[in-house]
Amino acid sequence: MKPVVVTGCPRTEEDLVARLGALGVATAHEALGRSGLMKPYMRPVWPGAAIAGNAVTVLAQPGDNWMIHVAVEQCRPGDVMVVACTADNTDGMFGDLLATSLKARGVVGLVIDAGCRDVATLREMGFPVWSRAVSAKGTVKATLGAVNVPVVCAGALVRPGDAVVADDDGVLVVPRRDAAATVQAGEDRVANEGAKREKLAAGVLGLDLYGMREPLARAGLRYVAYTGEE
Amino acid sequence: MKPVVVTGCPRTEEDLVARLGALGVATAHEALGRSGLMKPYMRPVWPGAAIAGNAVTVLAQPGDNWMIHVAVEQCRPGDVMVVACTADNTDGMFGDLLATSLKARGVVGLVIDAGCRDVATLREMGFPVWSRAVSAKGTVKATLGAVNVPVVCAGALVRPGDAVVADDDGVLVVPRRDAAATVQAGEDRVANEGAKREKLAAGVLGLDLYGMREPLARAGLRYVAYTGEE
Amino acid sequence: MKPVVVTGCPRTEEDLVARLGALGVATAHEALGRSGLMKPYMRPVWPGAAIAGNAVTVLAQPGDNWMIHVAVEQCRPGDVMVVACTADNTDGMFGDLLATSLKARGVVGLVIDAGCRDVATLREMGFPVWSRAVSAKGTVKATLGAVNVPVVCAGALVRPGDAVVADDDGVLVVPRRDAAATVQAGEDRVANEGAKREKLAAGVLGLDLYGMREPLARAGLRYVAYTGEE
Amino acid sequence: MKPVVVTGCPRTEEDLVARLGALGVATAHEALGRSGLMKPYMRPVWPGAAIAGNAVTVLAQPGDNWMIHVAVEQCRPGDVMVVACTADNTDGMFGDLLATSLKARGVVGLVIDAGCRDVATLREMGFPVWSRAVSAKGTVKATLGAVNVPVVCAGALVRPGDAVVADDDGVLVVPRRDAAATVQAGEDRVANEGAKREKLAAGVLGLDLYGMREPLARAGLRYVAYTGEE
Amino acid sequence: MKPVVVTGCPRTEEDLVARLGALGVATAHEALGRSGLMKPYMRPVWPGAAIAGNAVTVLAQPGDNWMIHVAVEQCRPGDVMVVACTADNTDGMFGDLLATSLKARGVVGLVIDAGCRDVATLREMGFPVWSRAVSAKGTVKATLGAVNVPVVCAGALVRPGDAVVADDDGVLVVPRRDAAATVQAGEDRVANEGAKREKLAAGVLGLDLYGMREPLARAGLRYVAYTGEE
Amino acid sequence: MKPVVVTGCPRTEEDLVARLGALGVATAHEALGRSGLMKPYMRPVWPGAAIAGNAVTVLAQPGDNWMIHVAVEQCRPGDVMVVACTADNTDGMFGDLLATSLKARGVVGLVIDAGCRDVATLREMGFPVWSRAVSAKGTVKATLGAVNVPVVCAGALVRPGDAVVADDDGVLVVPRRDAAATVQAGEDRVANEGAKREKLAAGVLGLDLYGMREPLARAGLRYVAYTGEE
Repeated sequence: MKPVVVTGCPRTEEDLVARLGALGVATAHEALGRSGLMKPYMRPVWPGAAIAGNAVTVLAQPGDNWMIHVAVEQCRPGDVMVVACTADNTDGMFGDLLATSLKARGVVGLVIDAGCRDVATLREMGFPVWSRAVSAKGTVKATLGAVNVPVVCAGALVRPGDAVVADDDGVLVVPRRDAAATVQAGEDRVANEGAKREKLAAGVLGLDLYGMREPLARAGLRYVAYTGEE
Repeated sequence: MKPVVVTGCPRTEEDLVARLGALGVATAHEALGRSGLMKPYMRPVWPGAAIAGNAVTVLAQPGDNWMIHVAVEQCRPGDVMVVACTADNTDGMFGDLLATSLKARGVVGLVIDAGCRDVATLREMGFPVWSRAVSAKGTVKATLGAVNVPVVCAGALVRPGDAVVADDDGVLVVPRRDAAATVQAGEDRVANEGAKREKLAAGVLGLDLYGMREPLARAGLRYVAYTGEE
Repeated sequence: MKPVVVTGCPRTEEDLVARLGALGVATAHEALGRSGLMKPYMRPVWPGAAIAGNAVTVLAQPGDNWMIHVAVEQCRPGDVMVVACTADNTDGMFGDLLATSLKARGVVGLVIDAGCRDVATLREMGFPVWSRAVSAKGTVKATLGAVNVPVVCAGALVRPGDAVVADDDGVLVVPRRDAAATVQAGEDRVANEGAKREKLAAGVLGLDLYGMREPLARAGLRYVAYTGEE
Repeated sequence: MKPVVVTGCPRTEEDLVARLGALGVATAHEALGRSGLMKPYMRPVWPGAAIAGNAVTVLAQPGDNWMIHVAVEQCRPGDVMVVACTADNTDGMFGDLLATSLKARGVVGLVIDAGCRDVATLREMGFPVWSRAVSAKGTVKATLGAVNVPVVCAGALVRPGDAVVADDDGVLVVPRRDAAATVQAGEDRVANEGAKREKLAAGVLGLDLYGMREPLARAGLRYVAYTGEE
Repeated sequence: MKPVVVTGCPRTEEDLVARLGALGVATAHEALGRSGLMKPYMRPVWPGAAIAGNAVTVLAQPGDNWMIHVAVEQCRPGDVMVVACTADNTDGMFGDLLATSLKARGVVGLVIDAGCRDVATLREMGFPVWSRAVSAKGTVKATLGAVNVPVVCAGALVRPGDAVVADDDGVLVVPRRDAAATVQAGEDRVANEGAKREKLAAGVLGLDLYGMREPLARAGLRYVAYTGEE
Repeated sequence: MKPVVVTGCPRTEEDLVARLGALGVATAHEALGRSGLMKPYMRPVWPGAAIAGNAVTVLAQPGDNWMIHVAVEQCRPGDVMVVACTADNTDGMFGDLLATSLKARGVVGLVIDAGCRDVATLREMGFPVWSRAVSAKGTVKATLGAVNVPVVCAGALVRPGDAVVADDDGVLVVPRRDAAATVQAGEDRVANEGAKREKLAAGVLGLDLYGMREPLARAGLRYVAYTGEE
């Protein structure tokens, strides 16, 4: 790891980011071919938030939030800060003062594979954070990391300028060059789902709607009457 | 594991199920002799829901929700779908379309030892789910499992037709043949607790109310004054 | 471990406890020199509560809540009960009846390195609990532990009479003799933060506010333009 | 849970048990239709042991090994003791004195979903144990459980008289009534594998040996040349 | 936490330490009244080692081994270095160069609630380490901690000068002032166990040897014949 | 994720791979600037193996090893197969038959972020595997993944053709284009360490050898005499 801050990174088109956000994490993840999802231990520190933005990436050291301070300057309106850590760590690297700074720069949220604190204040401020832990554990500012390099965050590869979508279902990374195709596939999917939902609500079975009976039988599924002998 | 769907399973009497639900998980668990509880990693995806129903069981493969689609058809009003998995897995096997289907059939909730997605929509729909994880991770429909066979779900044995109670305290399985006795023991317990609660609220100590002082002394408990030397 | 109940323990001054509570966990933890924090798996069973109190400590055996009943008698108004366990355990050692008792004695909350149940009722009662798990799993009353001895709870050493602060960010233990200095340092910190928050909200960068540019450069941080070759 | 010791349980035929042991866990698990396996956290306390036996089941309370002492009397030559616990627990419920007792009765090994101690002595004695943890943590003898009732151990249902196979790959439970069919299927599998192993060692590809190329193509797998653009 | 190195700490008497080592972790833990044990995630990096020594304590920051270098100078022959960390961390804070240094000073082993590396070399050197993880992850030397202050390591309180016993069963801390009594109780226990072991090996049941039948019956244990209905 | 097999990938130069292997994981990791390490849950299934090779990457679905069969054909002598999974999974995706195939092709080892089985046979064959679990759990061959695409395996990004080094300390990925520089830096480091080791063995303190006394004092470290008041 070289201790660098990369400037002038490309960004995912604003319109695509907004449309990915409208799809939500679950739908966009399917549209991307079922990839790009962070591990499910990443949870919102307060429920109900839903965002999409352009990734500014940070690679931090365990117990050290120096690089987050450095990265603030690289953020622009519509960005999401994504913080990875060189080792598993739950220290509270981010709190209300940093949130104040990010909000002042128009950043829409934070994704951090470490801990977050001041969560009551963050909820009041309406600043959304997805993290692996809530922890008041303080950090130092002693060791360099990197900003706007590719990072692995909660099991997902994130490059600066990728689109990040986050809601109650988790956090998704959409590579910049796949954003347009994902939007297209996702919007098709949504259009399609409305009709399905109506039919299912009316009692039509998925078995019939999706034509599953024949492949199930071919795979060998059998129906047997209960005998009580398990 | 044989790839079967067992039909015509017996059900726990509706009245007993309702009364188990009124007891709640903690009381019914005590009434059952402190058994039947799923592991505490099973949590509601939104807080405040409380249900009881008749178990329809599903054994699914990791990353594959095909058998859930199959099991929908086996559900009747008042059922709870219980999904076990052949290996630890957190993939989002269940979402709003399946919930729409289950709701249309009168199913009162889902218990799944895997992941769940579309949780914001599930909350809006008022469809309760207890799961080991929230995850948008998509699944396939490729490999058979079984429906309405005995399964081990989150550490508890569940047979089709057992009663399932779930609330903010967790998920309890009451074997069908133990349901009547559990209801009886639980309702006795509740009657009993009201009087105790009043006394405790008035400041009577549990030590006295439960007659613990003598057994504690006999077991060797001593009271010593603080000396500062620990 | 000797099976004892220690009586007549010293207490942290009431005024200091109140002021620590006003600081909150994150600020008081910094003021204490970044120590005293319990592990982040300790979470509130309902969000939004914030307390501070004087520690009454309990050392319990796994699956056994006998000593909690014993400890109730040792509690006075303004106390927080802190329950450690001799082995990792998530059983539901504490529920609404014990909460009724503690409330009757003026106890402000519970911190337990084990499970808690009846959480819906606890929320209605407004009785706050921080625990490692929610579990309806019942416990026995069979084996002695100790009350008001020093314990290790969720990784933190707690002595009877220490101050305990708990909120959405976690649980902090402030040793009795460090309470005054911690209050002082924390209140200075708060005074200081108001001004900082305003500047950050106005767009001043932490890099400048905290004078970080020079030490970062000295440590070797470089800024490079994006080339696409990562 | 009723505090009972069930006597006179049926046993899996000795010859079938021996042949299951010869198959080993991985092969017998496949032969049983890929079920019956305990979770992979169950590990041998010393490597290299491989056993098969008839299950004597124990349901113990966390931190309490009283029922193990009770169960010793129920064991006969060729048995495997299987200990489940009513809650997740890692206490050292089993050590060299109990192993001495079991060895004296001809028991071939122990499977315990809790902790084990005296592992250096167990290795010297050649007494094999599979456990979820090694821990010297002492236990009490205070609360009843049950012996020879069906239990869920490390995620698997075990009934008294089932066959248990354990080796470096983990622990498998073969239901008594499935033992004969499993032996048959497993021995066929072994006969079959010898020829396959030779071909694979000679460089024949599994793709060809198992006829996978056509189904892979049908499923949509494509071969593309590396371009450096991922 | 104050950044200090405490010098001139008292030590547990050499003879007592040696006798605690002869008892081993499991026996000494019982003799101490079943307390003082570190969590079972602390495992030897190579099996078979067994040590006892006088604790030199270190409090380190996550990802930073600076204080271990500082602590080396405080070690004397017969010491065990015990490293706690201010946050959960698995980085490889200790390797063969530090082991070379400790060996040169007569230190008998290391206990570290973090990661260890160069384990193949440590095995060759015969230098024993108990750690929570093996990891090659490098660390920095940037932030102060403390040496020879009381620390919580893997759930156990350790003061400089306490005795530490470690073997394949785990790690035990014996407070200095309890060392003599623990040795006495443990040696009595060992004398006692020899006779028991012989009887158990001869087939005498623990039920009889320990007089358990009457208390079991009083607690309500019943023996029932197998009926096949569970 | 597109279901593709990428052919004709570049490889890291054989000589560089061999020299990285000679350095070992810990030293190569430092030489690479403390990056590229997989998470420490990746452990050898038998101890003592040490390998280095050229990465052939596989992205598999949970519970499904179809793509491993596909990938065998892409392997050449000196390769290491690296298997990532689209979700956390511990199923036994790899056993002795696949190992026989890989050995026949000259593959030097396997790194798999899932389970492995037949470990006794693998040890006899001398085929080294690093995995997150040992499990006999069988898998299916039903769903496509990808071969020789960039994957995230146990938290590390791996591209086909990167160098992989693995030993008792864990698993390291060295990006192909960084291999030469890493070899250079690592060999310098080794040369340097010999002299240090001798001095440390002779009793020279790291504090003096590395010139730490002055920076420690500047950072505020103080030495104080023990007073017994902690």
